[in-house]
Amino acid sequence: MNLDFTFQNPTRIHFGRSAMNHLADELKKFGPNILLVYGKNSIKKMGLYDQVIRTLKECGKNVVELPGINSNPRYSQLLEGARLVREHHVDLILAVGGGSVIDCSKGIAMSAYCEGDPWTRYWENGEDVDNPVVPVASILTMTGTASEMNGGSVITHEDKKLKLGRVFPLELASPKFSILNPEFTYSVPKYQMVSGIFDIFSHLMEQYFSGDDDCVSDYLLEGDMLALISAARKAIVNQEDYEARSNIMWCATMGLNKILALSKTQDWEVHMIEHQLGAYTDCAHGIGLAIISVPYYRHIYKYGLHRFVRYAQNIWHVAPEDKTDEQIALEGIQALSDFIAEMGIPQTLREVGATEEMLPLIAESTVKCGGYHVPTTGEVLEILKACY
Amino acid sequence: MNLDFTFQNPTRIHFGRSAMNHLADELKKFGPNILLVYGKNSIKKMGLYDQVIRTLKECGKNVVELPGINSNPRYSQLLEGARLVREHHVDLILAVGGGSVIDCSKGIAMSAYCEGDPWTRYWENGEDVDNPVVPVASILTMTGTASEMNGGSVITHEDKKLKLGRVFPLELASPKFSILNPEFTYSVPKYQMVSGIFDIFSHLMEQYFSGDDDCVSDYLLEGDMLALISAARKAIVNQEDYEARSNIMWCATMGLNKILALSKTQDWEVHMIEHQLGAYTDCAHGIGLAIISVPYYRHIYKYGLHRFVRYAQNIWHVAPEDKTDEQIALEGIQALSDFIAEMGIPQTLREVGATEEMLPLIAESTVKCGGYHVPTTGEVLEILKACY
Repeated sequence: MNLDFTFQNPTRIHFGRSAMNHLADELKKFGPNILLVYGKNSIKKMGLYDQVIRTLKECGKNVVELPGINSNPRYSQLLEGARLVREHHVDLILAVGGGSVIDCSKGIAMSAYCEGDPWTRYWENGEDVDNPVVPVASILTMTGTASEMNGGSVITHEDKKLKLGRVFPLELASPKFSILNPEFTYSVPKYQMVSGIFDIFSHLMEQYFSGDDDCVSDYLLEGDMLALISAARKAIVNQEDYEARSNIMWCATMGLNKILALSKTQDWEVHMIEHQLGAYTDCAHGIGLAIISVPYYRHIYKYGLHRFVRYAQNIWHVAPEDKTDEQIALEGIQALSDFIAEMGIPQTLREVGATEEMLPLIAESTVKCGGYHVPTTGEVLEILKACY
Repeated sequence: MNLDFTFQNPTRIHFGRSAMNHLADELKKFGPNILLVYGKNSIKKMGLYDQVIRTLKECGKNVVELPGINSNPRYSQLLEGARLVREHHVDLILAVGGGSVIDCSKGIAMSAYCEGDPWTRYWENGEDVDNPVVPVASILTMTGTASEMNGGSVITHEDKKLKLGRVFPLELASPKFSILNPEFTYSVPKYQMVSGIFDIFSHLMEQYFSGDDDCVSDYLLEGDMLALISAARKAIVNQEDYEARSNIMWCATMGLNKILALSKTQDWEVHMIEHQLGAYTDCAHGIGLAIISVPYYRHIYKYGLHRFVRYAQNIWHVAPEDKTDEQIALEGIQALSDFIAEMGIPQTLREVGATEEMLPLIAESTVKCGGYHVPTTGEVLEILKACY
């Protein structure tokens, strides 16, 4: 744990089949005006919308709604939410949905009382938040982003064709409480489920593939990866396997609630590339990550060879006998590729709506950060072509 | 994650060589009257006492001191602290030391305004705390108990010859902030260092050896165990290896800040036996745990065979080929025994001051909880005799 850190995560988690029983008690801690943020029709189909509205009414709340949040939440929706917060003097933003809905809600919370243009100040320039912030809480129906227990808010500016993630301080932005009932995730289509699984897996790898020290967080990241692989293999067979779905849900929350990143430098280049893929196509986030990961790691493994050897052995149980480190590392990446195929995830950008013309635009607009190696635009283009 | 849970850990952690830089800012959040709790002379020898006093004075605090806390903190010391809190209208109890000092401080915080006898109400009967609680903060100088980020308070009632642990709710008892500088642990004698290491290892095993499901927390516990073994082997060679000592410190905090226990049933029988050993002898806590663990696990492994097989393979890399599950499990426990010897820890109760006459008294007074199996008094006696 060579790098100093300060850590506090204030989110209260209610997890399990009975988690919703805590909603009323939590709501009582906040004022009367609630902005209810959600996506398309799924929470109505599953009956959750009615259940939430009933509890809100029983608690005497005034409810204003912001429905229709996209899977890549748009800045225009954020601005509409911010307007509603000001107009109705909202005391709590209650996000019911997946990471997009919660990310959008956090963006609204940060922006409602911002002086100036929130996009420029908070997403483009990364300024400190200097205005009052409305508390956010969440009821999770789709797992992956860990937005339920972190300060992240990824927003797409549709006019600028930019998808930017901002990680706000946990004490400001992390939900005050989050309700996690794994059964709520049953109704997510299989394609979205595996997208979520790979989003989680990518979060773990982005945190893992950096640093040269023997850091506790790396061991915990390995534990979370192994738990996820085991659970994913069960969930793909039976989407209503409670044990598997609950494990996936908790792997996700632990995977990006910051506790496994402590004292770590990190990578996040795969996410940077995928964000721009998401700005040009409607590709599901986790699917895009899966497609990009394999050529990305094949490109950068030689810069962090020791770590890719460790990954191959500890995560994919690659036997080291009679092999060079290069061979071991590449077998680990191949095992990752095989796992992606096993999950039924597409392997090419073509299949998710990218065209050849888009590739240079995506490469150019991608933020270059990197872990063991910071890629150039040319290298990103090479990676994109390798999975086109 | 089959068992429902609610989780929130409010402690803010400042970790690393620069952690003390945050002390003044943290102190400013509390009122002027501080009870400074510490142990014997070590914090004075290392210069930490002077540094803390200087910062307290610079922040304009009034300081009253409670020095001399034992390694098994005594109820009489707790009562003395409670009296000081009332007399001086203490706003914050600042614990500077190891787990004993922090445990005692939490006990004081819970007891100062308790109506009736705190020992009977909160430790013996486990009643809910219904009185105002004074906030606690900590500066850690010895690692092991994770008291710096949990609600536990283990107190010894010297007249009753009882050592009882009470886990108070995190939001009430967990320190508001904790300062963790691994360099502060360098001065701890080697014997105390390995005692701390085995205390951590025991916490992880007590949480691990229970349950039949495929739970994320088990994978994370395995990660923490592997990190600890790696770091312990480096620290035993060089006590001032910052990477090793910082990893041990964070393994400890993660090992019992409740996050790796989520959705787990647990065991804790080894701790129950050791607590009574501690009531009869002055044995260092972690040393007692190490001595008791091996015969305890040899006694109970057959009740949770699958888990002991997993432990042998994942933690000690026991090769499964051509072996029965029994053989694999027992090889894992032997590897644990070998690790204890490698750390230079005594292997018998005799070496830590127990007499043969004490054994039935310890067995009789031990709380029986258990994970895969709840032992009888006769079985506890058998376990004690096996390591006498």
